[in-house]
Amino acid sequence: MSEARPMNGIEVARDIMERAAERAAQFEARTGAKPCLATVLVGDDPASVTYVRMKRNRCAKYGIESRHVPMPETITTEELVSAITELSNDPSVHGILLQHPVPHHIDERAAFDAIAATKDVDGVTSQSFAAMAFGRDGFASCTPAGIMRLLDAYDVDPRGKHAVVIGRSAILGKPMSMLLLARDATVTVCHSKTADLPSLVRTADIVVAAVGKPEFVRGEWLKPGAVVVDAGYNEGNVGDVAFGEARTRAGLLTPVPGGVGPTTIAVLLEQTVTAAFRQQQISA
Amino acid sequence: MSEARPMNGIEVARDIMERAAERAAQFEARTGAKPCLATVLVGDDPASVTYVRMKRNRCAKYGIESRHVPMPETITTEELVSAITELSNDPSVHGILLQHPVPHHIDERAAFDAIAATKDVDGVTSQSFAAMAFGRDGFASCTPAGIMRLLDAYDVDPRGKHAVVIGRSAILGKPMSMLLLARDATVTVCHSKTADLPSLVRTADIVVAAVGKPEFVRGEWLKPGAVVVDAGYNEGNVGDVAFGEARTRAGLLTPVPGGVGPTTIAVLLEQTVTAAFRQQQISA
Repeated sequence: MSEARPMNGIEVARDIMERAAERAAQFEARTGAKPCLATVLVGDDPASVTYVRMKRNRCAKYGIESRHVPMPETITTEELVSAITELSNDPSVHGILLQHPVPHHIDERAAFDAIAATKDVDGVTSQSFAAMAFGRDGFASCTPAGIMRLLDAYDVDPRGKHAVVIGRSAILGKPMSMLLLARDATVTVCHSKTADLPSLVRTADIVVAAVGKPEFVRGEWLKPGAVVVDAGYNEGNVGDVAFGEARTRAGLLTPVPGGVGPTTIAVLLEQTVTAAFRQQQISA
Repeated sequence: MSEARPMNGIEVARDIMERAAERAAQFEARTGAKPCLATVLVGDDPASVTYVRMKRNRCAKYGIESRHVPMPETITTEELVSAITELSNDPSVHGILLQHPVPHHIDERAAFDAIAATKDVDGVTSQSFAAMAFGRDGFASCTPAGIMRLLDAYDVDPRGKHAVVIGRSAILGKPMSMLLLARDATVTVCHSKTADLPSLVRTADIVVAAVGKPEFVRGEWLKPGAVVVDAGYNEGNVGDVAFGEARTRAGLLTPVPGGVGPTTIAVLLEQTVTAAFRQQQISA
C-alpha cells in the first residue's frame, strides 16, 4: 500500500518567515523601528505560556519586536478590554495577540473585539471573521490561514472539492470553513452533534480535523487519497488524527508536530509585518 | 404517494407581526413615538421598488413608522455611506434597511457596514454576521432568521440533522449556514462550483435553496421526507425548487410565494421594534 506524502509545515513556515524577516528589515531600515507584536497572556496556563514563548522566540529570530503583557488570572473582562484598548491606541504597537483561551470568567469575545482591526494580526476579531467570510481585505485567523498556505504549497486546489471541517470554534473551525468556501470548496462543518461522522468524512477530498481529541479521526474513515490536515495538538505530541492509520489511506497528510503548528506562527509573523507597513502607510 | 406538507409562511409571519404590533403599540404608549424604520433605496429597479413598498406597507399596517430615503442611481459609495451614517446617528430612526442589491459601482459591503449595529434590523453588517456565527446577541439576517422561525413553527429541530444550503451569498447562504450550525445542524454549503450537487442534496435532511435560478433543485435530488425550504424568488412566482416534483418527495415544503418571503418581512418588523426598545433602554 502506498504511503501518504507528508506535508512539511516546518519548510512551508520557514519560507513564509524568511520573507517576513526581509520585509521586517526593510521596515526597520525605513522607520528606525522594528515591527512590534504585543502578546497578551492572562494567567499562567503552562501550555499557553509555552505557546507565547514560542511565538516571541520566532519574532526575535526574524526581526520582529515583541512586547509581553502578562495579566493576572483574576483580571476582569473590563480590565482586560481596557488594557487591550490601550494597546490598540498605542502607535508603537503594530499587532496584538491575545493568547487563547482566557479564563472562563472572562468574556473572550469582548476581549478579542477590543483589538483594533488594523492590529488584529491573529485574525480573531468579529470584523476579521466577516472579512474572511466576505472575501474582504483583512487579517485571517492564523491557523486556518496557515492551513491554506500548506494546501497551496502542495498544489491542493480546493475548488470544487468537498472539504469536511471537523470542529466549529470561532478561531479555527468557522474561519477555516469560510476560507475554504472563499476558494470554492464545497464545505461541510461537523461537530459533536453530527450524526454518522465517519460516513461524512468518507465523502471528503479534504479533511481538516480540529476537535482537540487525540487520534479521534480514524484511518478507515478516510477516502483513499484524501488530503488530511490535522490541526489538533494533544498531550504527548499526538494530533486529532490517528496518524499511523491515516498514513496508509491519505494522499497528503500533516504530521503532528511539524505540520499545522509552524505555519500558524509563520502567518502571525507575516501579518505583524504587514500591519506595521499599513500603519505607517508605506508599501513593502 | 404522500404529498409534502406545506409550510405556511403567511401564517407564521402573521403571528410574528401581530406580536410585533402589540409591542410597537406599547412602545408608542410609553414614548409617544412609533418605532421607525428608515428604508434606503438606491435607483429604481422595479423589483426593489416593489420590495421596499411591501415592507413599508407592512410597517404601516402593524404600527411601525417608515421613513423612505430614495437615492439616485448615480450616487457614489461615499455619498451613500455618508447618508447611512447620518441615519445611524439620528435618534428618531430605530432601524435601517438598505435594499439589496445596490448598483454595481457601489461598494455594498461598505454601505452595509455604515449601519450602526444597534440599528441593523436587516442583519446585514459584518458585526451582525459575526454575532450570528458566534451565537452572540445581535440582529439576524432577516431571510435566514425567517427560515429558522418556519422550521420552529413546524417542529423541525435542526440538531444533528444534515442541512445542505445551496448558495453562499453574504445575506442569505452564509448567515443561513451559521444559524443552522448554531442550532447544531451539520451544515454543507454548496454553490456553483460544487461537484455532483444532486448526490449531496440527496444526503440532506434539510435543504435550503438560495440560488436564484427557477426550478433549479429537482424533485429526484431530494431524500424522501426531507424538509425543503425554497428561498428563491424568480419571475412569474417561481422558486428555486421544482415545486411539483418536490411535492411528491419532500416531507415539508415551502410554497413560492407564501413561504419564506412573508417571514423575512415579519422578522424585519420584529427586529425594528426590538431595536426601538433597546435604543430607548426600556424593556418590552
